[in-house]
Amino acid sequence: MSGPPTDTVTVELGDRSYPIIIGSGLLKESGPRLTATLGTAAAAIVTNPTVAELYLERVETSLHHAGHHVTVVEIPDGEEYKNLASLALIYDRLLEKRFERASSIVALGGGVIGDLAGLAAATLLRGVPFIQLPTTLLAQVDASVGGKTGINHPVGKNLIGAFYQPRLVLIDISTLKTLPRRELLAGLAEVIKYGVILDAELFAVVETQLDRILSVDEDLLNSVVRRCCALKAMVVQRDEREADYRSILNFGHTLAHALEALTGYQRYLHGEAVAIGMAFAAKLSCVRGYCSEETVQRIGQLLKRVGLPLEVPPEFSAPQLAQVIGGDKKVTSGKVKFVCVENVGCARFEHLTASEVAALAVA
Amino acid sequence: MSGPPTDTVTVELGDRSYPIIIGSGLLKESGPRLTATLGTAAAAIVTNPTVAELYLERVETSLHHAGHHVTVVEIPDGEEYKNLASLALIYDRLLEKRFERASSIVALGGGVIGDLAGLAAATLLRGVPFIQLPTTLLAQVDASVGGKTGINHPVGKNLIGAFYQPRLVLIDISTLKTLPRRELLAGLAEVIKYGVILDAELFAVVETQLDRILSVDEDLLNSVVRRCCALKAMVVQRDEREADYRSILNFGHTLAHALEALTGYQRYLHGEAVAIGMAFAAKLSCVRGYCSEETVQRIGQLLKRVGLPLEVPPEFSAPQLAQVIGGDKKVTSGKVKFVCVENVGCARFEHLTASEVAALAVA
Repeated sequence: MSGPPTDTVTVELGDRSYPIIIGSGLLKESGPRLTATLGTAAAAIVTNPTVAELYLERVETSLHHAGHHVTVVEIPDGEEYKNLASLALIYDRLLEKRFERASSIVALGGGVIGDLAGLAAATLLRGVPFIQLPTTLLAQVDASVGGKTGINHPVGKNLIGAFYQPRLVLIDISTLKTLPRRELLAGLAEVIKYGVILDAELFAVVETQLDRILSVDEDLLNSVVRRCCALKAMVVQRDEREADYRSILNFGHTLAHALEALTGYQRYLHGEAVAIGMAFAAKLSCVRGYCSEETVQRIGQLLKRVGLPLEVPPEFSAPQLAQVIGGDKKVTSGKVKFVCVENVGCARFEHLTASEVAALAVA
Repeated sequence: MSGPPTDTVTVELGDRSYPIIIGSGLLKESGPRLTATLGTAAAAIVTNPTVAELYLERVETSLHHAGHHVTVVEIPDGEEYKNLASLALIYDRLLEKRFERASSIVALGGGVIGDLAGLAAATLLRGVPFIQLPTTLLAQVDASVGGKTGINHPVGKNLIGAFYQPRLVLIDISTLKTLPRRELLAGLAEVIKYGVILDAELFAVVETQLDRILSVDEDLLNSVVRRCCALKAMVVQRDEREADYRSILNFGHTLAHALEALTGYQRYLHGEAVAIGMAFAAKLSCVRGYCSEETVQRIGQLLKRVGLPLEVPPEFSAPQLAQVIGGDKKVTSGKVKFVCVENVGCARFEHLTASEVAALAVA
């Protein structure tokens, strides 16, 4: 296909394999690339008003020119709309439009849009093709890859969902140019997570080239995003449905999910909550004797340099946190599978009760 | 395992394979059999008040004695409750009870309960183990086997759902003793369907031994149910996700789904609508030259002897039917994949527009 230069990472999952195509300016190519994957059936773009204002026209135009009949469903912007009511809205809109099994759902936006649209794709007509066009760093390095879809429930985050792989992930790095700085930093939290649990070299790249990343150097971000996608593909290929190994990606997430739930998904961006969760997980790892004080410092310093929060807000008590952590999907027989760090680039699991985790969090 | 004699049909789907165990009095064995499959995690029984009054105590007791912690969720009886509100009720109840990924959902009831509970199992915590205890003939021969889960939408039937295989199907034939006669007859419609599309011998068994079936002869029903499960397993193994061949099972269902939607899922039991749909599909097959007038007569006569309806109600116009048929999941590029009969025991596909189908239906 002509167009801007691209990198491709393939997620190898047998008949559910799919390419992640990474490059600058790819949204303008979304029409022909969708056609190459699925032919020219109807497509529904699920997006939010913020992203729509910036990118909807170019995606819609590209899809139209490539022969796709396009429907647009806009969901209000924000994690608090990743719920059953928004899912019902997508069902209503697309079923009233006579959506067919060959029609595809295209998620244009960040993790909220991708997770929500993905669950709609997984459950409309028992499954329709799903395409991800992630426009935030967080969605590009994490949420859009690997097939986790879901919505939140008042009891906790992502408690309703399905494993459902996209047919294509198209990552347009140039969208990071318009990403609010706060969201860029939040996305970097997930990049740092990959470094901590799997890739000391990636961690060092963020440490040494943070300025270039923060000035949105597209070449550097292209290689960083590609590296993260390759790491995620490796994990997902080894354990697609999170029977065991995949939960390594939940480093920092046990506490993060609890903080997000306790603050009604409104105070923190997901990556910010993950930053607090990672700083805490590093400390817990040190207390348990898995990692050195230096490792805790090194992780904390990088998070601080990025400008991410590190501290659990003092207003939450241990019993409050324990109650929410106890409702996490990862709880089995009352124990949380907690991800600890051993060294930058190396992680391990530890089974803890929710109360053990919470007590340390407010210590 | 000790207990009553059983037959087992295995649905071979690699790591998603599962047994269908058939026998009389099996509900009393549900606890140990659940333990043998899944260990002793918590279990949620989803059922309706009608079935609960007859069978809940014996299932609950058996699960308790086998060491399972049991939660019960009752959904009002009827197809009109197979909707998003009931699904949300299951989510709320189980998430508030701290449902874990190892906990299982047990569907105790007919097709409505099985389809609804199955979709809950497919989407709670991105998938929890699912067990079917079907108590109607229709659910035993069709709905409980093969992994189709779903709920209805005002636009049409089963438009929201997922393919999600159970871990175990336990069919207690003795529950047919308490099944209202109208439901027994409706279930027989699906038995006759298997005969028409796949198994002339099964069709002949129903023709020649209808009296024994209608008097609920457990030995005969055991072999009829086993035969239907084996046929369904064969179809599902060949095409689990209905890429192509599996839609052979939709014989009679195109019109049936339309009639159910037009009557608000209240006038007909599913099997009754299927009977009308099969009589119509046979006629359409004859008009198109695929089968003889004798075949149409033979199918119609058996349906009539059973006491099932055959005629499309005169109040529905062709445009009304066409509109609803056009919203069916099976529509691709505006055409319905319609299942025609060639001979009793042999079927084929025909691609028709919704208007072509509807015009013949009211002719």
